[in-house]
Amino acid sequence: MFVKNCWYVAALAAELGRTLLARTIAGDPVVMYRTEAGLAVAMLDRCPHRLAPLSLGKLVGDSLECGYHGVSFAPDGRCVRLPGEERIPPQFCSKTFPLEERWGFVWIWLGDPALRDDSMLPQDFRFQDEPGWCPMSDHIHVSAHYELLVDNLLDLSHEAFLHMNTIGNTAVAETPARTTLDGDRVEVLREMPDCTPPKLFVKAAGFDSNIDRYQRLSYKSPCYVIIEVRATPTGRPDDPTRLIWWVLNALTPETESTTNYFWGLPRQFRQDDTALTDMLRAGITRTFEEDRQMLEAQQRVVVQVPLDSRTVYTRADQAPGRARSMVAAMLAREARAAAQATEKRSDEAA
Amino acid sequence: MFVKNCWYVAALAAELGRTLLARTIAGDPVVMYRTEAGLAVAMLDRCPHRLAPLSLGKLVGDSLECGYHGVSFAPDGRCVRLPGEERIPPQFCSKTFPLEERWGFVWIWLGDPALRDDSMLPQDFRFQDEPGWCPMSDHIHVSAHYELLVDNLLDLSHEAFLHMNTIGNTAVAETPARTTLDGDRVEVLREMPDCTPPKLFVKAAGFDSNIDRYQRLSYKSPCYVIIEVRATPTGRPDDPTRLIWWVLNALTPETESTTNYFWGLPRQFRQDDTALTDMLRAGITRTFEEDRQMLEAQQRVVVQVPLDSRTVYTRADQAPGRARSMVAAMLAREARAAAQATEKRSDEAA
Amino acid sequence: MFVKNCWYVAALAAELGRTLLARTIAGDPVVMYRTEAGLAVAMLDRCPHRLAPLSLGKLVGDSLECGYHGVSFAPDGRCVRLPGEERIPPQFCSKTFPLEERWGFVWIWLGDPALRDDSMLPQDFRFQDEPGWCPMSDHIHVSAHYELLVDNLLDLSHEAFLHMNTIGNTAVAETPARTTLDGDRVEVLREMPDCTPPKLFVKAAGFDSNIDRYQRLSYKSPCYVIIEVRATPTGRPDDPTRLIWWVLNALTPETESTTNYFWGLPRQFRQDDTALTDMLRAGITRTFEEDRQMLEAQQRVVVQVPLDSRTVYTRADQAPGRARSMVAAMLAREARAAAQATEKRSDEAA
Repeated sequence: MFVKNCWYVAALAAELGRTLLARTIAGDPVVMYRTEAGLAVAMLDRCPHRLAPLSLGKLVGDSLECGYHGVSFAPDGRCVRLPGEERIPPQFCSKTFPLEERWGFVWIWLGDPALRDDSMLPQDFRFQDEPGWCPMSDHIHVSAHYELLVDNLLDLSHEAFLHMNTIGNTAVAETPARTTLDGDRVEVLREMPDCTPPKLFVKAAGFDSNIDRYQRLSYKSPCYVIIEVRATPTGRPDDPTRLIWWVLNALTPETESTTNYFWGLPRQFRQDDTALTDMLRAGITRTFEEDRQMLEAQQRVVVQVPLDSRTVYTRADQAPGRARSMVAAMLAREARAAAQATEKRSDEAA
Repeated sequence: MFVKNCWYVAALAAELGRTLLARTIAGDPVVMYRTEAGLAVAMLDRCPHRLAPLSLGKLVGDSLECGYHGVSFAPDGRCVRLPGEERIPPQFCSKTFPLEERWGFVWIWLGDPALRDDSMLPQDFRFQDEPGWCPMSDHIHVSAHYELLVDNLLDLSHEAFLHMNTIGNTAVAETPARTTLDGDRVEVLREMPDCTPPKLFVKAAGFDSNIDRYQRLSYKSPCYVIIEVRATPTGRPDDPTRLIWWVLNALTPETESTTNYFWGLPRQFRQDDTALTDMLRAGITRTFEEDRQMLEAQQRVVVQVPLDSRTVYTRADQAPGRARSMVAAMLAREARAAAQATEKRSDEAA
Repeated sequence: MFVKNCWYVAALAAELGRTLLARTIAGDPVVMYRTEAGLAVAMLDRCPHRLAPLSLGKLVGDSLECGYHGVSFAPDGRCVRLPGEERIPPQFCSKTFPLEERWGFVWIWLGDPALRDDSMLPQDFRFQDEPGWCPMSDHIHVSAHYELLVDNLLDLSHEAFLHMNTIGNTAVAETPARTTLDGDRVEVLREMPDCTPPKLFVKAAGFDSNIDRYQRLSYKSPCYVIIEVRATPTGRPDDPTRLIWWVLNALTPETESTTNYFWGLPRQFRQDDTALTDMLRAGITRTFEEDRQMLEAQQRVVVQVPLDSRTVYTRADQAPGRARSMVAAMLAREARAAAQATEKRSDEAA
């Protein structure tokens, strides 16, 4: 069960073009493409005629033609060709989904289009697009429920055990974090003065001494974890040798046991150094691969033993716990609205 | 759930010999072989002793010896050897199934042997055996429910989109077909005068002009679609350059999500041209592979979204729709008969 | 459902060391290792913190450190480190299991530790450790329920059909066995005077004439089949050319459809002949591979058609039948005890 009245990252902007892209998003099969003018389009990946996946079809101009019997749909979902039939029944259309292209990502709204709310886009992703910042983004597929990925990112003490070859140092495990839970605000702050720099930090920024490391995580329901990262040489906060980046995590559910993990890593130092960009992409990918292995092993356990069967919680479990409550609340709200709509329809019918 | 009191193609006649052939047919595991005299035999592929598949055993003369503990069964199912036991209990036998070898195919009757009805064999398959005709047959495995294959064959407009490299031309999509539904008669007729010949037709018959193309489909419940095909140069119906063949489709269900698709393609032109036979086999196999990919994609959708959840139907859906009703009626008839038999037994017991 | 208050072979003693060994035993995920002093340790393979498998972690001295967030557990299950937390809640511990290392195997007690009963170890496995005997052991993985493996070993007539290239001769099928069922004693005796020696027996002992072959099986619930084997040249019981070995079978359930089959084959002839040991290991492995293929095919049937749906039983089915009854009785006993414990707890609470 997934929240539907919200934005999910459906694709990197660069993934979309004149080739059909099929992707399951929060349980819904979606096919995406760009019109000849470059506008991004998303349709349910299922022809209303005989349920064949439209992604096996082809683009004819701006329309998508089903590969089975040639039924064609315009970008707004209207059927524009029904071979061998004289007239096209008006209800013969393809379901489409609102898309919003922003900050190098394509966002999809799977729920009620009338409830579309652009203010629900996580604004911190804007750093991918901000002057003075160098953007970088990519995605990996993880065979684990997206909430396990949220858990993972909201407790970064794991960097000291899983990621010692890249972004981990012992300080993230030894330094308790301060968690702020205030309404919908979930924030975890960890300040690590005078600590050993992680290997990837040394390679990226050239530190030759201990650093003051700063991590501020914030969670935005249902699937966004935003991490502000700063590191400066200990005692020299204004040294030009410094590391400033954001890790923008969009954990788009695919199925109940899989996730398309989209990420951005805009940085505000050595912005024009493309070799650094390549090195960072490799380092971050390696890091997330380490997460992937652990998350997939954890997933195999939690399908058999529910995570909430645990009896002991630590302070580091506070933020992940609140995140899960917030998702549960969103789901309950949507279920309530659906029940009310059903009731209203039956009242009107009576 | 499958119709049982009917004939299914179990194998090509050429597949059966002195090697055990295991095949699941409409959910029933079956092992088949020929006796030394060449008679085809079919048994439940399950030793009554410890349920090991008999197909892992071996033939000893005309008997089938289980590979696990050596229990042996004659072609009529009688146990003829029970190693280490002095007497063989009479109920210790293997279930056998009536087989009928005809027209190059081996047909099996899975239901009540007392209801066996040879008139239910689809007589049009006889063209595989008729003087003046060149037979050809083969089979492929498709991971889709057999009714999706019936649907596929009863709406050939798809040839214009899926099979343009072999048997498709645009005429099959643009020319509406005439559907006749009259009791158990389901027929779809499409006459396409003065159309471009499909690529495979040109290769097969050497057309150098437009053709008059004729397609007559008929459905025989539960799983037969017979297609009569004719093509002659436009305006020259008696030209010796012509194409006449039947496509005989036997869509034998394997499981609820898989089908063994047996087909014949007897032709009445250039009967002795073996190079043509080879070319046609390759062309038809390629065509059915194109179907297979689409059908398997469609199957993955319909296991999640039932096909009858659709709200809009086209005229081309009439014949497939009637075919499904006919199968449903056969299933209902069998369920009713089973219920009556149960009732009768309990009346007798009372 | 598996019996829990009993011993299962968890591993060959040689498998355990300073590398973490993960194995599912009767449905329970277990991680095993040796302390620096060589003591065998078994824990539930699931960190109580976030359910990550502990087997992805690493040994730090005698403690096992979770690879995700670094939570560490001593061999007795006590949590000895909880990074970033000031105090460790006492209930934050890892479940451990009693192990007993004996006769070259490591035995695990999955049930209530208070009920641990060393007298339930199958004493015949001691021949692996007895002076004058040459031990040999190994294990294979079989995708079949362990009771199918018990069935297999309690009716050795199958050797005449499945294993004619190694340990089978026709005598095992033709000679009826005598089954003794007396309380918990299940024994099957087969004496085969003056029979052709199996191929592997000739290679092992050098027989050049017929033999008197002796097989005595005994079953110990839930998963042990012990086979005493003797063969001597016919009419020369004291000839030095002889074969004496025990086949010790420990059929450790893994899941409802898989088994870790551990076996020992201590022999009392040519004890120092290491080439013979190698040859025998290869021969026995080949034999059990033949079983594996049949058992896995049988498993695929019995998940669809329950074995107890059979209507005819042979005399050879007596011992396997009793074995299954004994397991059912053990399971019932454990279910009853669990129900009583629940009742007692609720009485105390009232």
